[in-house]
This record gives sequence, C-alpha cells and structure tokens, in this order.
Amino acid sequence: MHTDHAPGVLSDVSRVIAEHQANIRSIETVSPSDDRATLYLEIEGDADVGPLVERLGALTVVRQVESAEPLIAIYGKRVIIIGGGAQVGQVAVGAISEADRHNIRGERISVDTIPLVGEEELASAVRAVARLPRARVLVLAGALMGGSITGAVREVQARGIIVIALNMVGSVREAADLVVTDPLQAGVMAVMAIADTARFDISRQRKRRY
Amino acid sequence: MHTDHAPGVLSDVSRVIAEHQANIRSIETVSPSDDRATLYLEIEGDADVGPLVERLGALTVVRQVESAEPLIAIYGKRVIIIGGGAQVGQVAVGAISEADRHNIRGERISVDTIPLVGEEELASAVRAVARLPRARVLVLAGALMGGSITGAVREVQARGIIVIALNMVGSVREAADLVVTDPLQAGVMAVMAIADTARFDISRQRKRRY
Repeated sequence: MHTDHAPGVLSDVSRVIAEHQANIRSIETVSPSDDRATLYLEIEGDADVGPLVERLGALTVVRQVESAEPLIAIYGKRVIIIGGGAQVGQVAVGAISEADRHNIRGERISVDTIPLVGEEELASAVRAVARLPRARVLVLAGALMGGSITGAVREVQARGIIVIALNMVGSVREAADLVVTDPLQAGVMAVMAIADTARFDISRQRKRRY
Repeated sequence: MHTDHAPGVLSDVSRVIAEHQANIRSIETVSPSDDRATLYLEIEGDADVGPLVERLGALTVVRQVESAEPLIAIYGKRVIIIGGGAQVGQVAVGAISEADRHNIRGERISVDTIPLVGEEELASAVRAVARLPRARVLVLAGALMGGSITGAVREVQARGIIVIALNMVGSVREAADLVVTDPLQAGVMAVMAIADTARFDISRQRKRRY
C-alpha cells in the first residue's frame, strides 16, 4: 500500500480494517521518503478482502493498494542460529541442507543467523527471538554461554520457542530443550523439529544429549 | 505491549501514537490467544516516549506496556541468501564469518537464508525481499536462474536492494550488481558491501565479475 508519510495514516488505515472485523497481524513501513511511504500489512480474519481493499484505496492518505502473499507462505517458519561465527556457520550448513530437502517437498523453512560476541549482546539477541515473526526454533552455537543468556533462554522457551544448544561450557546447556555436540547435526535436528514433513518429535527428545 | 486480542485494538493504539506526532515503523502481533495478544511496535519520531507509554497504558484495551530496543540495534542490517541448498550453505559460511568480524567491531549484521527450487518460487522469494525489514543485500546462490527471477531482481534493485549473483547459467547474471564465482567470496563481499566498518564501495564494483 502506497500512502502519505505522516502521523495518522496508520490510525485511518487500522480504523477501516477494524470496521471490517479483521485483525492486523503485522505492519512494516518500508522506504519512507519525505512525503510518501510503502506499508506492508498482513491481515487475518474471515472478511472478504475485496471490499476492504476498495475502502482502503478510497482513503485520502492512501495512493495505491495491492494484494500480496503473506511472508509465512514465502519464507515459512524460521530457524534462528546465534553464537560464534565458526559454529554458527557450521550449524547453518546443516540446517540449510536439511531445509532444502523439506522445502523441495513443499515445506517452507528459512535459516536465519547472527554471529555475536558478549554475554549481554547474546542475551538481548536471544530474548528478542520472541519478537521475530515466524521464529520457531533457536540454536545456540558457541563454546561458552551462561549467566544472563540462560535467563533469556528460559524467557523465549516460555513463549513457545524450542531451544537447541551445542555441547558447550556454561549453564545454557541445562536450560536447552536438547543438546547436540556436532554443529551440522544440531542444524539438521533444528529443522526436523519444526518440519511438518519430518517424523521427529522434539517432545520425545526433551533434555537429551547427543 | 500486552493487549486484548480483538479488532479495533490497533486503531485505538495508533490514534494515540499519531496524537503524539510519532510514526509507527512496524508492528508485529505475537502469540495471539483467544482473548489477549502481545504487540511489538517500533516507533520513530522526536516525541518523548514517557508520556506516550503512559497514555497507551491507560487505554482500556491495553494491559501492560514495556519499552525494548529496536530490532535494528539487535540484529542489524540483513544479508539475504536465496537459492540451492549446496550454494546457499557455502555463501552463508562466507557471510557469517565476515559478519562475525564486523560485529566484533560494533557492527550488527545478520545473515538470513532460504533454500528453494523452482522459477516461480524463487521469483516470489526474491520479490518479497523488498518487504523484509532491514534487508540490504541479496545473494542469488544457484546454478541456473533467469526468466521471471531476473524481473524480480530488477524490482528489488529499484527498491534499493543490492543484488550479488554467483557465476551461473541464466539471465540473472546480467541483472546483478556484481557477479562472484566463489560462494565464500560472494558471502564475504555481500557483508562488506553493507558494513560501515568495511572499506568496500559496491558502486565502484558495479557490473564487475570476479
């Protein structure tokens, strides 16, 4: 949706959507310039989108409306890998290779990573996984993680994120749902844990170590 | 922000934010249940957030408000890698290794990937990169890409995304800003192209092949 770039645009847009009994799942403002912006909205609800698109297009602040596929249909569920560069890279190779096999069979799984150093930096990144859309499983890929990182692990687990840790020094291993020694295997298992096309039940592996 | 889960919540919230002359950069609804939802909002503007948080908390649909760091400060700019599993994995290793070196010096760069097969699937995924928050550079990692994928490449370039392609069969090479033969090197260069801590000017390499 191309709109004016000014306070109040979203208020007008969301009022119209609410009147159609639909919920806004997400909104992203992309490339705002001085006077215009592009908004991407994901909307859920039973409402027929035709009349909604028409009413949105009729708003004075809206210049153009187009429909697009939701990101979950394109990029799917997300595996998030956080830790040291050496280990993150190898976990990613395992996860990407396994995601490829499932995506060929119609699944959509993406593998997203960030290499970081430092307890506070890692704890913030772990905690923020709960805010990442479509994130389902987190792999902690490092040699030493504990302290506030372990607290952050428990927080994201409480939000429904599965946490796999490499076999490393520190208390993070105690909190993880699963500990895996080989980084490639950890990446593969992370994908299997969330793939509908896999016969792997993480709840039966809970607290095991490989 | 913990809120009721019902149409109209966002309309109330965005009206208050607009009245404070602030813009909503993004909104994500996480783990909605029958009657409650968690909303993550990123807000930009000169307004002091204190009074805004107070007024939001006073809304009847809002149960609790907390402040958090924006995702750009935690996960930073994104390198997106799309293509075949074998190549995506190797480009990712290069990019993660290079991102590690920059992140240690205070940068925040993450490396996000999806292995996919099929012209239409790839074209949709490429096109949707424009909708991914914080995406700056796209690496096409495959052996054969052309047709509608090449059209999608030109679309995302028009939105300011840098596109690097492996040296492969198909017309995608013609559209790419840079063609790199070695997948590790392609990943490294993708990170260098967007790192503030790197001395690498992609505009001086435009249309070159390595």
